[in-house]
Amino acid sequence: MRVGIVGVTGYTGSELLRIIHTHGRVELTYVTSHSFTGKKLAEVHPQYSGLVNLTCRPFSVAEAVEKTDLVFCALPHGEAMEVVPLLSDAGVRVVDLSADFRLLDEMLYREWYQKEHSSPAYLARAVYGLPELYREEIKQACLVANPGCYPTSVILALAPLASKRLVRWETLVVDAKSGTSGAGRNPSQLLHFPECAENFRAYRVAAHQHTPEMEQELGRLAGENISITFVPHLVPMIRGILSTLYLKLTVDLEEDELWTLYKDFYNGERFVRLLPPPLLVETKYVYGSNYCALSLKKDRRTGRVIILSALDNLVKGAAGQAVQNMNLMLGFTEEKGLEMLPLRP
Amino acid sequence: MRVGIVGVTGYTGSELLRIIHTHGRVELTYVTSHSFTGKKLAEVHPQYSGLVNLTCRPFSVAEAVEKTDLVFCALPHGEAMEVVPLLSDAGVRVVDLSADFRLLDEMLYREWYQKEHSSPAYLARAVYGLPELYREEIKQACLVANPGCYPTSVILALAPLASKRLVRWETLVVDAKSGTSGAGRNPSQLLHFPECAENFRAYRVAAHQHTPEMEQELGRLAGENISITFVPHLVPMIRGILSTLYLKLTVDLEEDELWTLYKDFYNGERFVRLLPPPLLVETKYVYGSNYCALSLKKDRRTGRVIILSALDNLVKGAAGQAVQNMNLMLGFTEEKGLEMLPLRP
Amino acid sequence: MRVGIVGVTGYTGSELLRIIHTHGRVELTYVTSHSFTGKKLAEVHPQYSGLVNLTCRPFSVAEAVEKTDLVFCALPHGEAMEVVPLLSDAGVRVVDLSADFRLLDEMLYREWYQKEHSSPAYLARAVYGLPELYREEIKQACLVANPGCYPTSVILALAPLASKRLVRWETLVVDAKSGTSGAGRNPSQLLHFPECAENFRAYRVAAHQHTPEMEQELGRLAGENISITFVPHLVPMIRGILSTLYLKLTVDLEEDELWTLYKDFYNGERFVRLLPPPLLVETKYVYGSNYCALSLKKDRRTGRVIILSALDNLVKGAAGQAVQNMNLMLGFTEEKGLEMLPLRP
Amino acid sequence: MRVGIVGVTGYTGSELLRIIHTHGRVELTYVTSHSFTGKKLAEVHPQYSGLVNLTCRPFSVAEAVEKTDLVFCALPHGEAMEVVPLLSDAGVRVVDLSADFRLLDEMLYREWYQKEHSSPAYLARAVYGLPELYREEIKQACLVANPGCYPTSVILALAPLASKRLVRWETLVVDAKSGTSGAGRNPSQLLHFPECAENFRAYRVAAHQHTPEMEQELGRLAGENISITFVPHLVPMIRGILSTLYLKLTVDLEEDELWTLYKDFYNGERFVRLLPPPLLVETKYVYGSNYCALSLKKDRRTGRVIILSALDNLVKGAAGQAVQNMNLMLGFTEEKGLEMLPLRP
Repeated sequence: MRVGIVGVTGYTGSELLRIIHTHGRVELTYVTSHSFTGKKLAEVHPQYSGLVNLTCRPFSVAEAVEKTDLVFCALPHGEAMEVVPLLSDAGVRVVDLSADFRLLDEMLYREWYQKEHSSPAYLARAVYGLPELYREEIKQACLVANPGCYPTSVILALAPLASKRLVRWETLVVDAKSGTSGAGRNPSQLLHFPECAENFRAYRVAAHQHTPEMEQELGRLAGENISITFVPHLVPMIRGILSTLYLKLTVDLEEDELWTLYKDFYNGERFVRLLPPPLLVETKYVYGSNYCALSLKKDRRTGRVIILSALDNLVKGAAGQAVQNMNLMLGFTEEKGLEMLPLRP
Repeated sequence: MRVGIVGVTGYTGSELLRIIHTHGRVELTYVTSHSFTGKKLAEVHPQYSGLVNLTCRPFSVAEAVEKTDLVFCALPHGEAMEVVPLLSDAGVRVVDLSADFRLLDEMLYREWYQKEHSSPAYLARAVYGLPELYREEIKQACLVANPGCYPTSVILALAPLASKRLVRWETLVVDAKSGTSGAGRNPSQLLHFPECAENFRAYRVAAHQHTPEMEQELGRLAGENISITFVPHLVPMIRGILSTLYLKLTVDLEEDELWTLYKDFYNGERFVRLLPPPLLVETKYVYGSNYCALSLKKDRRTGRVIILSALDNLVKGAAGQAVQNMNLMLGFTEEKGLEMLPLRP
Repeated sequence: MRVGIVGVTGYTGSELLRIIHTHGRVELTYVTSHSFTGKKLAEVHPQYSGLVNLTCRPFSVAEAVEKTDLVFCALPHGEAMEVVPLLSDAGVRVVDLSADFRLLDEMLYREWYQKEHSSPAYLARAVYGLPELYREEIKQACLVANPGCYPTSVILALAPLASKRLVRWETLVVDAKSGTSGAGRNPSQLLHFPECAENFRAYRVAAHQHTPEMEQELGRLAGENISITFVPHLVPMIRGILSTLYLKLTVDLEEDELWTLYKDFYNGERFVRLLPPPLLVETKYVYGSNYCALSLKKDRRTGRVIILSALDNLVKGAAGQAVQNMNLMLGFTEEKGLEMLPLRP
Repeated sequence: MRVGIVGVTGYTGSELLRIIHTHGRVELTYVTSHSFTGKKLAEVHPQYSGLVNLTCRPFSVAEAVEKTDLVFCALPHGEAMEVVPLLSDAGVRVVDLSADFRLLDEMLYREWYQKEHSSPAYLARAVYGLPELYREEIKQACLVANPGCYPTSVILALAPLASKRLVRWETLVVDAKSGTSGAGRNPSQLLHFPECAENFRAYRVAAHQHTPEMEQELGRLAGENISITFVPHLVPMIRGILSTLYLKLTVDLEEDELWTLYKDFYNGERFVRLLPPPLLVETKYVYGSNYCALSLKKDRRTGRVIILSALDNLVKGAAGQAVQNMNLMLGFTEEKGLEMLPLRP
């Protein structure tokens, strides 16, 4: 099978390339870039110099149709919504890694992304690409909206409780911490090494654009409208997200009962790992790999449940999950190309 | 004035030395170490080689009495409680940087530090060394219990609300993140560079020994018994604590009303900095300095107040605050020796 | 084919495991540990919790013979020389990752490792496991001495010049810089995060035990006895070695002539990458992968040749090269299991 | 005394501010910025929010004359040469931190900085601001050219040998490693955190613009024209330079003879520290402080001398040395405001 990457020059682009390179069943036949048209991929991603021999093409629907069976769209949000409908209309199956097709409600898109959605008709056709929740829909999908990195970590952490209506939502606090690669490849003051190293900070406090995505999906599971307090922080490291979730339950459960509930819910899931206590998840337990690792704790003094959820923002939080979706769409085994173990140390 | 440091070989010891070196009004005349008795300080802390000319002495009450007007005790908890009473009985004024004299209730000490307190009679005599709350008591104190790093960041973040009884305590979540120097100088797997770098994790989830210290002091301010959910995390950096606090109020206040309340409460305080929005605190805004920086936010969607509190765990969280206490005890201006600006980049 | 790892609990052990896991043609059937006998591998390397299901066995020659076709010995130097001869005598093919069988001269071993060699008779039987130089010998070998991380980077950087006798050896300076994982898994003051981060230093200046290994192999190529000034440094990062080599030539060559010479010498080599100028090697261009990347420069003002050589100390500098050797010994294609691209960012 | 900073918004600007803040004998009365005219300094350098109350002024010679006794010029090279002559002509004493007045030969400036010098007449009037070599000249100087960070580390490492004509210059190799803050405050791909962290690389191999500065000053000391092979590298840390120098001597000296020679040469120097063996310099031994630390080694096997030289690029390599120069110019004790100890951990 032949696949393409539209917008290959960012970090999700290079990570897709890295994973597909050892996939074994798909060939990368078409990569595009607006700014680097005509350049060798190895000039854009010099770590692949001598290893990958592809040239950046301009985007063309016709070429995508001709050369690929499936396209990963790795454009920034706002740009993806201009391109994805064209591919979709031409019959190309798409996994879109942007935020443009994740929200069902175009009003929410406008509110959180400060932009009018140019193709609202496609919102309802897109399947939310979280295989642990929508596996069957993804297999049939023409357009998959690959989830955001934070939402993947938060939704997987809460899905078992949400689907059993065990969460008192007004008590939920999500305190998330991310490495820096999630902010993308463009240099900025925020990510300038001398200011980012040896530093820790919060950002977009209770105003991050991933908030409505979590609320939509968790609300769907819970069968009610919910509002979440979500605060992301920036960790001086490259990869990894660890989300710490605090909540109270509608029914009192002990730690081992929670454990059983999660075990049952994720039974058979290849990429969700429940860590046996006293082990606590660390981002290095998932580094460079497609796993989401979870730890469960009960604070007996306050009755709160505390959940730790870790993943690699570029893999299970982006490119790895996209390949997992591709595997489902193209009929491969779900873990094909995603068996690499975490890199540690 | 002459001061001494008992237990000079750890990180709080070297940081006290660094600050006292440019203080100008006190002379360091006596430093002790059990393991390094007879060694030059510059052998223990090689960064001071050629700059500091002191030799580690064995601990002796008589020598402390003879050579010093005040002693900083920088021993680990459990050891301080053996030494501090001896000094105190001999009339030496002490700032103790351990946890041994912070809790009023010896039962809590036993519960959280898994150890019987050997000198419970001294607990009531010690003044909790947070100048912003106990300035007058510190001036007169013979024994000051220097606060923990996490409690300093959390108590200063909540004191204005607690003292006005504005906190609904059952809603409070404290998610704290610390650099690695807080864990001390002894090598461990946890702090082994190849496992600590590029990694983020939680530890002692809802079980950290600083919890009762926060509860005691905030409970005192609030006039009620409280329980706090407190989860610390380890950041791959050397210095700095950032605590993110989530709570709901007993009375609805807007962000600017909160701001005014904090401004009034900390009016005239030299070492508490309220950052004007849209600036959000970063640990680098206090690096190497004695400041605690605060940001206030209201999440309108959920009604939660979110407070960010940052300090350098070795300065305002330990040695700097100890010098601030010393200044009060010895009658210097409170900021003497503590005027250094944050180091950034 | 079935392989084993003796001494699986260190970093080379976990890295072997990571690579073998996706190799596809060999099965890991036997892992041993002295200190962790009876423990699950996932307890020793928690990043593999839920992913690898093996238990640490005590070392036994009989079990190795029964369960494996080839054994990786990942014991520290000094220990390997006790174990490898037993395996070898029992007919087990061994790739030894320690330094114990790299030097031909037991006197040099004693001098640089401060230890008498207990099995000097095996020194001559071991093949130095650098496939780019000894491919045919490795295929037939019963015992392969896997090269050190620094020597791999230095020998590959100089082999084309050495074999053509183009180096004026008395002008050679090797200034090497390594990440911290090369120092192993045991915590130490040197690698304590608060002292290792934001710090850079040299160590074992002109006294590192890898020096005679380089001198032996480069001397062999050059056909003369040579002495090298070698100074290693510690970089505050986890993985990666970059060696900077300075030398003058016996014959004056321009940069493009050098380039051609290297291109010819490494023609067909899969794991040596010559970076086309103006690209300069970075350790991130090889992170997590089995490549050694080289850049060549001529300083026209002084006539010096400057060579930059980068590799991942745990992959091409240890476990990856060991698997490359295994592939040769067991008749697989040389790159089997080693096709993973560098991880960047 | 009143001082000003022209071009206060970069890293040398903020570092000057940090040091002057606790100097005690000078007041900062005038700060300028082109891009931030009219802004509060605390908006430009938020770490000083609430601590420093100055507003960025546009540059004006008249205002500089009226408000200051001495000006630090912290503009980039190429801009300083437009401004410094104006100040100088108006009688303002200047310490210039750019490279514009360091080279005596305008041809060299053109060659290495790819720019015509606009004020070559001032080159001969500027004193090279390395107090250890030019103390008396600096005291009288109207214009001081503050040395570059690399040259300071290299010249101080070689001055004792150079002035005694003990260096065989054709054998000298300078391999230098720097933290990232030396590259300035402007974001770039090179210093983008996800690409700079966990990475090590060389740059401007044998082509760095600091080369002629070293050659000029060391040549002056040695009384001959010299050429140096100089290769800088980028270390994933914020502050610190460590230079490793390799050379052969014209006269054979043992390590202890070298030591005595250096001890004599730097006798009485407050800011040059010779570390007693077996201690080896680390950049953390000088972090945030104005010291240059040196270690000396002899490689007996090859006869080479190896010198390690460490300093903080923003302090002794820039702002600290500038204040040291100011102290000499204004008649303060040389160490005034520079007594702070290194920050470690």
